[in-house]
Amino acid sequence: MPAKPREIVLQSSVFAVEKLSIAIGAGECVTRHIVRHPGAVCVLAVLPHDQLVMIRNFRVATGQWMHEFCAGKLEPNEDPHDAARRELIEETGYDAGKLESLGSFYTSPGFTDELMHAFVAHGLRHCGSALQPDERIEVVVRTTAEFDALARSGEICDGKTLATYLRWRLLT
Amino acid sequence: MPAKPREIVLQSSVFAVEKLSIAIGAGECVTRHIVRHPGAVCVLAVLPHDQLVMIRNFRVATGQWMHEFCAGKLEPNEDPHDAARRELIEETGYDAGKLESLGSFYTSPGFTDELMHAFVAHGLRHCGSALQPDERIEVVVRTTAEFDALARSGEICDGKTLATYLRWRLLT
Repeated sequence: MPAKPREIVLQSSVFAVEKLSIAIGAGECVTRHIVRHPGAVCVLAVLPHDQLVMIRNFRVATGQWMHEFCAGKLEPNEDPHDAARRELIEETGYDAGKLESLGSFYTSPGFTDELMHAFVAHGLRHCGSALQPDERIEVVVRTTAEFDALARSGEICDGKTLATYLRWRLLT
Repeated sequence: MPAKPREIVLQSSVFAVEKLSIAIGAGECVTRHIVRHPGAVCVLAVLPHDQLVMIRNFRVATGQWMHEFCAGKLEPNEDPHDAARRELIEETGYDAGKLESLGSFYTSPGFTDELMHAFVAHGLRHCGSALQPDERIEVVVRTTAEFDALARSGEICDGKTLATYLRWRLLT
C-alpha cells in the first residue's frame, strides 16, 4: 500500500503536526513534518508622547519572562482584526479607537505555516484586562527610544515583536 | 499512576514535540504541547553599494516562494557562528570575510523554543553554493531601499528576515 502523502500525526490545543512525503526528483522522496497553526495576531499599541504599550509575558516554551507586544492565536473562524481588538483588551486592558493592519508575516516558515497578522492600535481607552487562567502577564509602557535600546541589547528577543515594529517604522 | 509532567510525544528530523502538564493554581493543571527545536541561524550578507544578498526559497510549509535572508538549523553541537558561515556558503555561494553577531531572538515563543541566532556578514567572496537535495533556492541581490519597499508591501513576509534586519538597522 503506498504511503499517504499527507497525514496529521499529532493534534494539540494550539497546533497540529502534519507528516508529508515530498518528491525531490528521480523517484526519491523525503519525509517532512510541518506544524500547522491557525494563525495569530500581534498588536503594537501607541499611547501619546511616543509611548508603546507592551507586556512582560512568562513563556512556558522558553522558561522566561519576555518583553512583547500583545498577541494571541486566532479562534476558529475569527477575523484577525477582531482577534487583535480582543487580545489587546484581554492582555493590556486597553480598547483601540483605531486599529490598522501592518500586513502579515510567517513566524518560522522552515517548519510551520503560522501566519502573524500585525496591527497598530491608536486612540487607546483603558477598560481593564481579562487574562486567561494560564496567562502570566504584566503591562509595561516603553517609549520608542527605550524600545530601540531594549531591542539593541537583546532584552527584546521576541521575533514577532521585532518584525511588527520594523513594519510600523517602515509604514508610518 | 500520576501523569508524567514532561514527555516527548513526537520526534521529527527537525524538531520534537513535548507534552507538559502545568499547574495554574488551586490544584488545577493544563496540558500544553511545545515544539522543541535545536535552534537556527539567519545571515544578513552585505555587498558593496548598499546591497544585500538574499534568497528566494520555496517553503513547503507555506506552499510559496519567499524572499529571505539565508538561514538554517543548527547541526548537533554546532556553534552558531560556524553554522552561519556554513549556511551562507551552502545557500548563497558566498564566504564571509567577517561575521558579526546581531544577537538572538525566539521565532514564536507561544509554542516553540526555536532560538534564531542572527548575524551580519561582510567581506563576501564568491566561492559557489552547495544546496541540499530538498532545497529550492535562488540567490537575489536587493538594495536596502528595495528591501524597505518589499518589507512595506508585504512581499518580504518572513519573520526572521524582518527581525534580523531591524537588529542590523538598530546596531549599525
